[in-house]
Amino acid sequence: MTDAADTFRDHVLPSDVEAVRDLVRDTGYFSAEEVAIAAELVVETLARGEASGYAFLFAESGGRVVGYSCYGQVPCSTVSWDLYWIAVHPSQQGGGLGRRLLRATEARVRAAGGLALYAETSGKAQYVSTRAFYEKSGYATAGVFADFYAVGDAKYTYCLRLDG
Amino acid sequence: MTDAADTFRDHVLPSDVEAVRDLVRDTGYFSAEEVAIAAELVVETLARGEASGYAFLFAESGGRVVGYSCYGQVPCSTVSWDLYWIAVHPSQQGGGLGRRLLRATEARVRAAGGLALYAETSGKAQYVSTRAFYEKSGYATAGVFADFYAVGDAKYTYCLRLDG
Repeated sequence: MTDAADTFRDHVLPSDVEAVRDLVRDTGYFSAEEVAIAAELVVETLARGEASGYAFLFAESGGRVVGYSCYGQVPCSTVSWDLYWIAVHPSQQGGGLGRRLLRATEARVRAAGGLALYAETSGKAQYVSTRAFYEKSGYATAGVFADFYAVGDAKYTYCLRLDG
Repeated sequence: MTDAADTFRDHVLPSDVEAVRDLVRDTGYFSAEEVAIAAELVVETLARGEASGYAFLFAESGGRVVGYSCYGQVPCSTVSWDLYWIAVHPSQQGGGLGRRLLRATEARVRAAGGLALYAETSGKAQYVSTRAFYEKSGYATAGVFADFYAVGDAKYTYCLRLDG
């Protein structure tokens, strides 16, 4: 698939393990455990391919990964997909790359037959811009789970219907 | 840990791969894909141990696995745990083994510091007894996601607070 304004790449390269680790860490949004998990999903996808259940979309600028999404069909669902990760390097934020990455990811899920894309984030103040990002992008709040990540840290589940 | 009425076993044996596959299939509740996933989680736990993120509890009768649960801490949560699977062989259903297995699982999660246990099931008519099982066991409906598993097949998320 081609996307007009950005260089988007679907296939996963060995160098993406380091690229994802650096990118996710540099955002400053994620814990060390989350950074490790983000990189581990790349490792697992390199090892197992489609059987991993994860798909990736990388945004590149000057040969460098400046944003990415990780998504996949929910196991045992025929229609629902999860957006596991979406991150844009701080140097590229504010230019709409996150939105373009999100739209390009949705297009891929829709093309694969997905009817809904789910995204989860925290209810903490730190994530107010993340929640605003999904809400402005048309995602509905499908569920709120109090004290989910920690006491006082809720999980927000967002959903975009792709059949509308 | 010991449990009065039943023989419960926490450690995972190689023979549990086949035992779980047979047990989950024999319930008649799960698709071939779900049966394969249930067995795969045992394989992954045998290979990776605690790093798999899965823990198991097996109920045995006459040296045979007649029920089991699979649970684990939610990645990136300090307090929430997921009940991934709970199943009782049809020959043993109706005697309260499911409830005892559930309570013993909750005790283990609580002992490990968990404050909430989540369970997901389908909204289809076929699962009315599963939903009643959680509701009668004190679980609250934390979320309902329409058309989640398939069009017309919602996901129900149940939650039991363990700090009450």
